[in-house]
Amino acid sequence: MNETKKPHEIRGLRGVSAGQTAICTCGIAGKGLTYYGYDILELAEHSTFEETIYLLLHGELPTRTQLDDLTKELQDLRDLPQAARAVLERIPKDAHPMDVMRTGCSMLGVLEQEQSFADQMQTTKRLLAAFPSIMAYWFRYAHDGKRITTQTDDASVAGHILRMLHDQEPSDLHRRALDVSLILYAEHEFNASTFTARVVTATLADIYSAITAAIGALRGPLHGGANEAAFELISTYASPEEAVQGVRAKLERKDKIMGFGHAVYSISDPRNQVIKQWAKKLAQTPANEQLYTISEAIEQVMWNEKKLFPNLDFYSAPAYHAMGIDTSLFTPLFVCARTVGWAAHIMEQRKDNRLIRPNADYIGPAERKYIPLTERP
Amino acid sequence: MNETKKPHEIRGLRGVSAGQTAICTCGIAGKGLTYYGYDILELAEHSTFEETIYLLLHGELPTRTQLDDLTKELQDLRDLPQAARAVLERIPKDAHPMDVMRTGCSMLGVLEQEQSFADQMQTTKRLLAAFPSIMAYWFRYAHDGKRITTQTDDASVAGHILRMLHDQEPSDLHRRALDVSLILYAEHEFNASTFTARVVTATLADIYSAITAAIGALRGPLHGGANEAAFELISTYASPEEAVQGVRAKLERKDKIMGFGHAVYSISDPRNQVIKQWAKKLAQTPANEQLYTISEAIEQVMWNEKKLFPNLDFYSAPAYHAMGIDTSLFTPLFVCARTVGWAAHIMEQRKDNRLIRPNADYIGPAERKYIPLTERP
Repeated sequence: MNETKKPHEIRGLRGVSAGQTAICTCGIAGKGLTYYGYDILELAEHSTFEETIYLLLHGELPTRTQLDDLTKELQDLRDLPQAARAVLERIPKDAHPMDVMRTGCSMLGVLEQEQSFADQMQTTKRLLAAFPSIMAYWFRYAHDGKRITTQTDDASVAGHILRMLHDQEPSDLHRRALDVSLILYAEHEFNASTFTARVVTATLADIYSAITAAIGALRGPLHGGANEAAFELISTYASPEEAVQGVRAKLERKDKIMGFGHAVYSISDPRNQVIKQWAKKLAQTPANEQLYTISEAIEQVMWNEKKLFPNLDFYSAPAYHAMGIDTSLFTPLFVCARTVGWAAHIMEQRKDNRLIRPNADYIGPAERKYIPLTERP
Repeated sequence: MNETKKPHEIRGLRGVSAGQTAICTCGIAGKGLTYYGYDILELAEHSTFEETIYLLLHGELPTRTQLDDLTKELQDLRDLPQAARAVLERIPKDAHPMDVMRTGCSMLGVLEQEQSFADQMQTTKRLLAAFPSIMAYWFRYAHDGKRITTQTDDASVAGHILRMLHDQEPSDLHRRALDVSLILYAEHEFNASTFTARVVTATLADIYSAITAAIGALRGPLHGGANEAAFELISTYASPEEAVQGVRAKLERKDKIMGFGHAVYSISDPRNQVIKQWAKKLAQTPANEQLYTISEAIEQVMWNEKKLFPNLDFYSAPAYHAMGIDTSLFTPLFVCARTVGWAAHIMEQRKDNRLIRPNADYIGPAERKYIPLTERP
């Protein structure tokens, strides 16, 4: 049968259209990113994460009242049910934090089922409010033995996250830096985790199933796991000179360097210039300045040697570190942001659904006769 | 931008190749199904689920020693860790059983992380052994308040499942009927849940993430949820005559009838003749005979009115019911079987991986300028 098929040319569906979207453009002219027509650079400069949530869920920027209402709703939905906290307390300190997010999401779906698609907007807000709580509640309990309150007064998601992690009022600089990072991570067209969410959604499964699945996809080092891997790289070296030598040696050994290049952008990742500028602004201690300088040295050597540009994940690493965020939480923070993009795509898929079921090219054995166990060699 | 693109023609990737596989052919000549070259009808007649597991994981039928070793390994891996049982005990009786499977899988992945891809075969066996335990432990605890042992002496997965659910030695008829049903459900090429598992795997995420995601996809009523929906339909009617009238009325109202037709088979589902014959054999009480007769009447009216054939899900419903299995467990049983197919595809994807990242056709607003909040209408 194999010989009757065309050879399979397009691996990983690269360049193949898997559907329509009104939410996002990504990689237009090799470098652009827009959310519902708004350039990511303008949103990062002027918008907030809450406003971006509204935009991605409704397709338009909110009025003052709409924004205030959404902010209040997200504030009111931060608490976790007792059974979810009990599950999080069962998860040991050495667990993979993305496994915690995946399990927390799945358990919340058990306890607070999406009864009908009419609930989808409410469920989305619930998940947007609950993910920072799941992340911080588990982390603080597992690491400090402390049962934190997840119901804080902070108006912004960014401030809420920083307060839960650090038990104190965050600085305006840190709050805004995290806020911008959440905007940058919020949405990215048919990336692997969003596409996963759409494939699950197309079976008419519930939103918790789709987002639990997306978290699993984001966990992979070829996707969300890259920001954590970038920090591991950067923090290996004691000086920019050492970093240059070390990365050159890695390239010679053909080691994969995480945080560079992109499946869709060919010229540059537009989000990089924003996060790089924030990483620089945040590097206010000698140790963080050193990390930033090392990051720049790595960027330079990657460009000189491979003509590869840093993507969002690369400078997110020193930026998050400078805010005192544990490396293991870098990808869970990506979940807190991308949930809005996933939800927007889930709702869009439901509006005009068809089961996503591709074909495969068969390369296995020809049909053969069953041999009874006693007659096998 | 929209107008510069070709209109999007192929919805749901129907007929588009998303990769190569050596595991399965599905829908050849509109009706064929093979696992590694063996016809499903021969496997259902002569093979066992354990042997089919070996075939799907290794590409060849086992020798006697290989089969005995696998059977023993699956037996030894049935117990659940205390923390997983504690999570299952937290899940209320009215939860969706597929949410239980999804959460149980995710939690097991927290507790028993796949540390490296070298663990994949062991992790697969663990999941194959653990899923019946997760399903039955939760169900019996939630419904009967009983903490069952999940470590039984039954050699077969089918016998193990029936014993855990019913607290007694299953009959040979029931054991073999369930065994055959697990063979039929074990694998089905690039169906939506398997494709989900491959998309997640392609980010290099762990096997638990991929299978948790697949469970979410299988939960949807356009996929695994169909067997449960089929039973709900069949059990609505008190007689074949009522069923014929009722289904005709549904068709007139354009209601969707679950368990008929298929995304890939155009002529018939080859698994139907097998499961139908078992459903008939299992219908030994007057009530079950009646259900079987009603099922046949519905099959007939669907063929007469719509030229639609029953798929595997349709006669699985009366067959499972006749074995005394609760309707809510029909799709979780599908999980217990399909896990082997998912795992086979995960391992195949890893052997020659590329990130699965399709494109989207943009149909949203053209680029527009950000308007500050104070200047919005």
